[in-house]
Amino acid sequence: MSSRIIEMLEQQDGQYLSGETISKELGISRTAIWKKIKKLEELGYQIEASRRLGYRLAGKPSKLILSELLTKLKDTSFICSVKLLDSVDSTNNAAQQLAEDGAAEGTLVIAEQQTNGRGRMGRNWISPAGKGVWMSVILRPSLSLQFAPQLTLLTAVALCRALKELTTLDIGIKWPNDLLVDGKKISGILLESTAEDERIRYIIAGIGISVNLTEEDYPEELRGIATSLRIEQGNELDRTEVIAAFFRQFELLYTLYQQEGFSPIQTLWEALSVTLHKPVKLTTPAGVVEGTPIGLSESGALIVQKLDGSQVNVFSAVTSGPPDVRG
Amino acid sequence: MSSRIIEMLEQQDGQYLSGETISKELGISRTAIWKKIKKLEELGYQIEASRRLGYRLAGKPSKLILSELLTKLKDTSFICSVKLLDSVDSTNNAAQQLAEDGAAEGTLVIAEQQTNGRGRMGRNWISPAGKGVWMSVILRPSLSLQFAPQLTLLTAVALCRALKELTTLDIGIKWPNDLLVDGKKISGILLESTAEDERIRYIIAGIGISVNLTEEDYPEELRGIATSLRIEQGNELDRTEVIAAFFRQFELLYTLYQQEGFSPIQTLWEALSVTLHKPVKLTTPAGVVEGTPIGLSESGALIVQKLDGSQVNVFSAVTSGPPDVRG
Repeated sequence: MSSRIIEMLEQQDGQYLSGETISKELGISRTAIWKKIKKLEELGYQIEASRRLGYRLAGKPSKLILSELLTKLKDTSFICSVKLLDSVDSTNNAAQQLAEDGAAEGTLVIAEQQTNGRGRMGRNWISPAGKGVWMSVILRPSLSLQFAPQLTLLTAVALCRALKELTTLDIGIKWPNDLLVDGKKISGILLESTAEDERIRYIIAGIGISVNLTEEDYPEELRGIATSLRIEQGNELDRTEVIAAFFRQFELLYTLYQQEGFSPIQTLWEALSVTLHKPVKLTTPAGVVEGTPIGLSESGALIVQKLDGSQVNVFSAVTSGPPDVRG
Repeated sequence: MSSRIIEMLEQQDGQYLSGETISKELGISRTAIWKKIKKLEELGYQIEASRRLGYRLAGKPSKLILSELLTKLKDTSFICSVKLLDSVDSTNNAAQQLAEDGAAEGTLVIAEQQTNGRGRMGRNWISPAGKGVWMSVILRPSLSLQFAPQLTLLTAVALCRALKELTTLDIGIKWPNDLLVDGKKISGILLESTAEDERIRYIIAGIGISVNLTEEDYPEELRGIATSLRIEQGNELDRTEVIAAFFRQFELLYTLYQQEGFSPIQTLWEALSVTLHKPVKLTTPAGVVEGTPIGLSESGALIVQKLDGSQVNVFSAVTSGPPDVRG
């Protein structure tokens, strides 16, 4: 029924179509039409409503095209298969299901929309249709579990390098893997690992990039701490380009990591970091750590120089106060 | 129907009951009875068959009793809830489902029988009804992912100490977590971790202990490399006692670990190890390592002194040759 409304509006070529006409054509009430219109807006359609003139299609959600995506990803041998979905609860969930069923490394799941996108620490992740890159890729590294957190840092470096390649923005990494522009979050990375004893079975690398979201896409309370490439850069970006740029960088660094270990990744991460050399207060499983991060350890922990001059390796922080949210 | 047959056999008090009588009573064919009998044997019933006399119940599977178990586990505050199952594909799967649904640390799943018990590296684990301890417990440590492999070593130490407490056997730990008696495997431990970035969501600690298995329970090809407490010790053990002894030790070490870190666990592991100071050849993700293990590193890796005198930390080995299978 909704697709019939879109079809009718599209035939108007940007001109208004009265609610009465739609109502007669589809045999449903004006209220029912209004509800369908709201639903379509949630899916990314821009529909202007006028009490007098009716409805007008002002913009459509830009859809990813699988064939175009596959062509762009041809340069990277890393991606072996792509599953493009209209809507999914969470691309990480979908990829995990595929991994459990034996899907190979490089299997990629992309969704136009996530209805229950997950961020770090169980937080929701805003992922409306057609405006961002919401994707998850299966990794099966020959790596012992101790090293899994290094891949979180590697993914952040790859994404940061890709987005800097495509924009003129000053993008930095907040430890461990948030990308910030002017202190506001522009992407989210969530690597979910499953292991048997010390052996990694697989890792789902979930990457959310706020590409073409507008301010209206964010609830009031998030506008000061979250942003999009479009808001910051001032123009829309081609999401297919963003995906391809990321995987070019990811493949490069992942190969480098497997050949040379963490050391080159560490150097790249430190150069892009906005966390280092600024005072922080971190709540870790072992208690609150206050001091200044001065670098990454060999294993990927954040080295914090405490107020008394001693150094401590922070492997994970449960929460972090405002001082380290801003870049 | 099967339970009716058992009931009838039990009323005979160890005497034979003719197939004809069963056939008449239950209104099923002699062939159907024979099939039910085979099924009962798989469930752990020992039934002697005589062409002339019929069937005789020679032994029943010893069943774990939940109330008895809860009484024995009262000393340990660690276990918060126990789910006792007759049969399950794998207790790790069952516990994982509970963990995904939010079950707390200390939730324990025990099954009389696993139909698809899993061992390290996807190997099957023989877990017939009523003869072993097949269980999985949910852990939710405030611990960063890097340290998860230390819990594998801790679990092995706890189990080794518990089994030494209950038997006079010379039990040792083969790196990382196999328990051996005279070079034969007596238990299996499999810790399955799931994490988001560097944070552990939960760990399922799966523990399989071959308590009262007889030689007949093992296929021919495993008899040289697997054994049970009963075979080695010469008498049956009370499985409830085994479970309680394990969790007393586990709670002790887990608390110690959370207070003092890995160092005391490392010392205990090294003292119980049969891997140290004997030449090994390990196939690791980084290649074959040949040398002599001399201890554990701070992070739980095996420190191997190579033939050229240099030392290398082995975090995981994909396979290991015969030299290190034997204690």
